[in-house]
Amino acid sequence: MTAAMRDFSSGAEWLSINTATLRKQWKLDRIVDECARRGIHTIAPWRDQVAAVGLEVLARQLRDTGVGLSGYGRGGFFPAADAAGLQAALDDNRRAVDEAVTLGAPCLVLVVGSLPGALEGRPLHKDIARARREVQDGIAATLEYARSVQMPLAIEPLHPMQAAERACINTLAQALDVCDALDPARSGALGVAVDMYHVWWDPLLATQIARAGRERLLAFHVCDWLTPTRDLLNDRGMMGDGVIELRQARGWMEAAGYAGHAEVEIFSEHWWGRPGDEVLDTCLERHRSVV
Amino acid sequence: MTAAMRDFSSGAEWLSINTATLRKQWKLDRIVDECARRGIHTIAPWRDQVAAVGLEVLARQLRDTGVGLSGYGRGGFFPAADAAGLQAALDDNRRAVDEAVTLGAPCLVLVVGSLPGALEGRPLHKDIARARREVQDGIAATLEYARSVQMPLAIEPLHPMQAAERACINTLAQALDVCDALDPARSGALGVAVDMYHVWWDPLLATQIARAGRERLLAFHVCDWLTPTRDLLNDRGMMGDGVIELRQARGWMEAAGYAGHAEVEIFSEHWWGRPGDEVLDTCLERHRSVV
Repeated sequence: MTAAMRDFSSGAEWLSINTATLRKQWKLDRIVDECARRGIHTIAPWRDQVAAVGLEVLARQLRDTGVGLSGYGRGGFFPAADAAGLQAALDDNRRAVDEAVTLGAPCLVLVVGSLPGALEGRPLHKDIARARREVQDGIAATLEYARSVQMPLAIEPLHPMQAAERACINTLAQALDVCDALDPARSGALGVAVDMYHVWWDPLLATQIARAGRERLLAFHVCDWLTPTRDLLNDRGMMGDGVIELRQARGWMEAAGYAGHAEVEIFSEHWWGRPGDEVLDTCLERHRSVV
Repeated sequence: MTAAMRDFSSGAEWLSINTATLRKQWKLDRIVDECARRGIHTIAPWRDQVAAVGLEVLARQLRDTGVGLSGYGRGGFFPAADAAGLQAALDDNRRAVDEAVTLGAPCLVLVVGSLPGALEGRPLHKDIARARREVQDGIAATLEYARSVQMPLAIEPLHPMQAAERACINTLAQALDVCDALDPARSGALGVAVDMYHVWWDPLLATQIARAGRERLLAFHVCDWLTPTRDLLNDRGMMGDGVIELRQARGWMEAAGYAGHAEVEIFSEHWWGRPGDEVLDTCLERHRSVV
């Protein structure tokens, strides 16, 4: 976008692989090895994948291979059916923070949740405004603990098509309003994960990235929006195969002070059906040519 | 929502049937008759359905049955591959305005379009900002003609999941910014169609409905958002079967001065597979109990 942008065209220094991208091909330990073998030294694992190999086992493997994290997925899902459910959610978020610390993650990504029960197809109520209040309260409670162990929290706005079930924070502006409310000092303890799949359509995207600024831009996720998109969850595209202007967006991120990784996160039945080697090689190639 | 809200519980006075809801069961002339027979005196037809029975034939049937329109669908789809394509789009919008006049519609609804070619799976470019500029220019050109024949234009923000193919205007705020730019006097010649399926998730919904105000609230479309939603286009729910707080939203609309119809528009493989009588009876019942 600008002469000042980092050059991604030959290296893998700023490439991170969100390990959900390969979750149907390989277990996490294999993903780490395959990344390291290709000179990709950064990943973003999910908790279920970590649990499957063991937290301490993974931590040791990361040390041994020199692979680090660009983020840890995920905390969140705060709104609950009742007080016991809320407490369970808060406890679980505290464990997620601890795991992120153990793995040396730069941030814990929050998929904040929405109407309780909706993910199971049985929403307990329709009051999304209430869910939004509960999310803010849940983030506030988790932030208190996360600050004490110096683990930044990154709110990830999710696409409005996932507003009922997965996240009632659906725009960058909305996420930044929560940051303003809970961390007005811009301490770096609370920020956002900008996943282009979720926010690419937003006419306010450029201005809200600028508003976020360096302290609050904690992660940058890339994939692509396909035309047509055949599934609301698992039809994301490889970078370059869709309509998102990824390099323009990276330009906005970098102009605002972001100097971290471009994390590839592709939920796709198509790519999950391809050999892991092909997926990883393609991620690397598109990182260089498109991102 | 408030004591001042209109009572929909027993009548059909403020119910309108968007005829796409029944497009796989009946031709338009049958839909008109079935509505009239139930005391539903308002519809919102689509151009292809009108063309199938004939514009003048329909106009006569409407006069004979006393059925009127809450809107006419649709104009729009401005961004084009080239200058000839743009001219064709503008010409087609002019014809749509004329048809709306012939049918006595209170407004022509605009689905504004987005990346040219994307609807066919072959986007010609990825520059959604450019598409947005072209849309505004296209609305401006159409507005000039529409004013001359006193046909109001209603911009319909479409859900962000349809941003690539169908409409690059995706929030009520964005639509109202276009209204501010092109009709700062709030003359009533340009406004918005608030389709709850597209905007229900928006944290700014209440404030933007208030901002729109009476002069710009030209239509109110209802259906419901299902959990899960299995298709990006044709899995809309019947009012009451999903998570949208329709009555709350109608309260916001009426508080802002809206006194028009609640137009039922359900694109749904499920409902298209049911007998037309059942669909229409259910629309009427839910209009009374849920909207």
